Amino acid sequence: MKLGIFGFGVVGQGLYHVLQQSNSIQAEIEKFCIKDITKPRSLDKALFTDDKNELLHNDKIDVIVELIDDAEAAFEIVKEAMNRGKHVVSANKKMIAEHLEELLELQRKNKVSLLYEGSCCASIPIIRNLEEYYDNDLMTSLEGIFNGSTNFILTKMINESASYENVLKEAQDLGFAESDPTLDVEGIDARYKLCILLYHAFGLITNPDELFTLGITKINTFDIEFAQKNNYEIKLIARGKKVGDFIDATVLPTFVHQSSILAQTKNEYNAVILESAFSESQFLYGKGAGDKPTGSAVLSDISALGYGYRYEYKKASRTNNFALHEDFEMKVYVRFKDQHPNESDFIEVVEKYSGPDGNYWIGYVSRQKMKDAKWLEIPDLNVIALG
Amino acid sequence: MKLGIFGFGVVGQGLYHVLQQSNSIQAEIEKFCIKDITKPRSLDKALFTDDKNELLHNDKIDVIVELIDDAEAAFEIVKEAMNRGKHVVSANKKMIAEHLEELLELQRKNKVSLLYEGSCCASIPIIRNLEEYYDNDLMTSLEGIFNGSTNFILTKMINESASYENVLKEAQDLGFAESDPTLDVEGIDARYKLCILLYHAFGLITNPDELFTLGITKINTFDIEFAQKNNYEIKLIARGKKVGDFIDATVLPTFVHQSSILAQTKNEYNAVILESAFSESQFLYGKGAGDKPTGSAVLSDISALGYGYRYEYKKASRTNNFALHEDFEMKVYVRFKDQHPNESDFIEVVEKYSGPDGNYWIGYVSRQKMKDAKWLEIPDLNVIALG
Repeated sequence: MKLGIFGFGVVGQGLYHVLQQSNSIQAEIEKFCIKDITKPRSLDKALFTDDKNELLHNDKIDVIVELIDDAEAAFEIVKEAMNRGKHVVSANKKMIAEHLEELLELQRKNKVSLLYEGSCCASIPIIRNLEEYYDNDLMTSLEGIFNGSTNFILTKMINESASYENVLKEAQDLGFAESDPTLDVEGIDARYKLCILLYHAFGLITNPDELFTLGITKINTFDIEFAQKNNYEIKLIARGKKVGDFIDATVLPTFVHQSSILAQTKNEYNAVILESAFSESQFLYGKGAGDKPTGSAVLSDISALGYGYRYEYKKASRTNNFALHEDFEMKVYVRFKDQHPNESDFIEVVEKYSGPDGNYWIGYVSRQKMKDAKWLEIPDLNVIALG
Repeated sequence: MKLGIFGFGVVGQGLYHVLQQSNSIQAEIEKFCIKDITKPRSLDKALFTDDKNELLHNDKIDVIVELIDDAEAAFEIVKEAMNRGKHVVSANKKMIAEHLEELLELQRKNKVSLLYEGSCCASIPIIRNLEEYYDNDLMTSLEGIFNGSTNFILTKMINESASYENVLKEAQDLGFAESDPTLDVEGIDARYKLCILLYHAFGLITNPDELFTLGITKINTFDIEFAQKNNYEIKLIARGKKVGDFIDATVLPTFVHQSSILAQTKNEYNAVILESAFSESQFLYGKGAGDKPTGSAVLSDISALGYGYRYEYKKASRTNNFALHEDFEMKVYVRFKDQHPNESDFIEVVEKYSGPDGNYWIGYVSRQKMKDAKWLEIPDLNVIALG
């Protein structure tokens, strides 16, 4: 295999070195395409170009490895590569989640393989396991912690009783959170990954925007104290669950009991729990972000291309496909200061607390109704799922 | 696919029911072969026979699922099935580990597939991940807790400061340990699994007897207290590690720090940690024994046969194969009463303790020398690996 690689960040550089070491992966890097050709590089200048066509139009290159940030630019590269009969490896979750149907069609039409294990939970081989090991229709649920930055922030907040703002600042200083952390802290990054995994787990194609998502930005010290008093951790949980013929899928900050395995998933780690009829739950755990974990997933994809591997999307080829559904009841903790929701916004309120530092209600709501609820926008109001 | 199943224990019964529920797995049970045909069964009598040839000589049956205890009887069944061109699914670790080379040859010669995910850590899809996801030569180590019964016993001993004898009794009463627990508590069961996994991880074929193994039967309350004081858990750790061109592989009771992920693996759970160059460690966790976890692995194998899956044993087809090696230094804790080893049995003794309840030395030994060391047989002497 001859590889053309877009991007020469740490993943690209690591790939170069590890491919030199491996005897089993028969892949050679033909060229890197980079933005700034004038910047000094650690490798021979002849390996670099800033002209994408030098890779895309090069017939010697069989595989394009796309490692750039910009999802739209990545999509254009990937599309052209596939239309030119090249296989593609990508770790771009936004690009995959937003263009899934087109990417499926491009694979079919051009008879090429697109692999993207690095897009979901980096080093955890979750897509491959859903494709191969859980290839039957017996899977009942998939849930986990899909975003390392927010998990780092939440772990610190709980363990050190620190405020969201301070921990975010620390995470940014350590390089665990982007300078614009919106995608992470609003749950959007986790939602992209959930979107991709829902297709591999259940054959459900959905627009990421359709998945009900709440972020972690409104969590305050009152919420943290509530968690500590009740032996909870707060985790940003992405979840897809089969309910009859429907899929219930959300990304929500959630109280999980300290003894649970998801609560044990700390700092920048990711975890996935899979459940299927006839099997106990299965837990996968590893670093969910970072250059080495992502590089390792990309490498495994390249290696798999070496023996003609492609995703078969077995669940999607079934006739009894599932639809996304919102008409579910859910238990929530709603914390507020002065202004509160109406009781009629709840199916039932089962606990009410008021005190000098804040107030909360615990009760059952309809997700359908909550999705467009105005009361979610009340200042100083925060929602955390329970159980 | 038409299945012939040997054994109608809980796994066989569960398989029957789950195959009824699944639309995606196109497999039908043709017949069960059981020992006692007179025993009343929950299904139609016509589904049962006590004549193995009714399955093995039946041309309608494409797949034999072997779920019996007796490893030698299982091997005869599996061999004949494969020689008759049938694919085989088995969960019999002893049979696989002891007959690996013959089974490889039978697969090659008859062009059939033999799958045995259920033989190692039940519901954890470890073999499939080693075959497919970690299919390159970059894996550096594999370690974990491969035996649920001993892990249950060790968890109880540490958490409840209970004696080995009492906890073993409790485990037997609960059905977590066999009435003859030797295979489990002497580390032999874990060794079979390690033996199988060494082949899939590194392409190393080895006789299970060659792997240096110590059991947990000699652990006493002195050892438990030592663990507690030092924030350790004791775990029976199976490990295979690449060291240059060699593989270092052992099954040993080991002190692991309470904060480590293997220490968090409690009770009957199993865990595997994989490490490879260029990747952070990857952790897989799930129930390692029991009918449902095993059944789920067997089911996934059956499902994989539906699309022609077979192990490719990619690591074994490499030229630079690894050899097992014993000439390694290891750090051990040796606890004793009156009689102790000679200091010359150690490379170096770094700590010595003596007290009213027992004595211990901590130091470095040569595995090579320890393998045949007479001092291991001293009564009231126990060895636990450190780090």
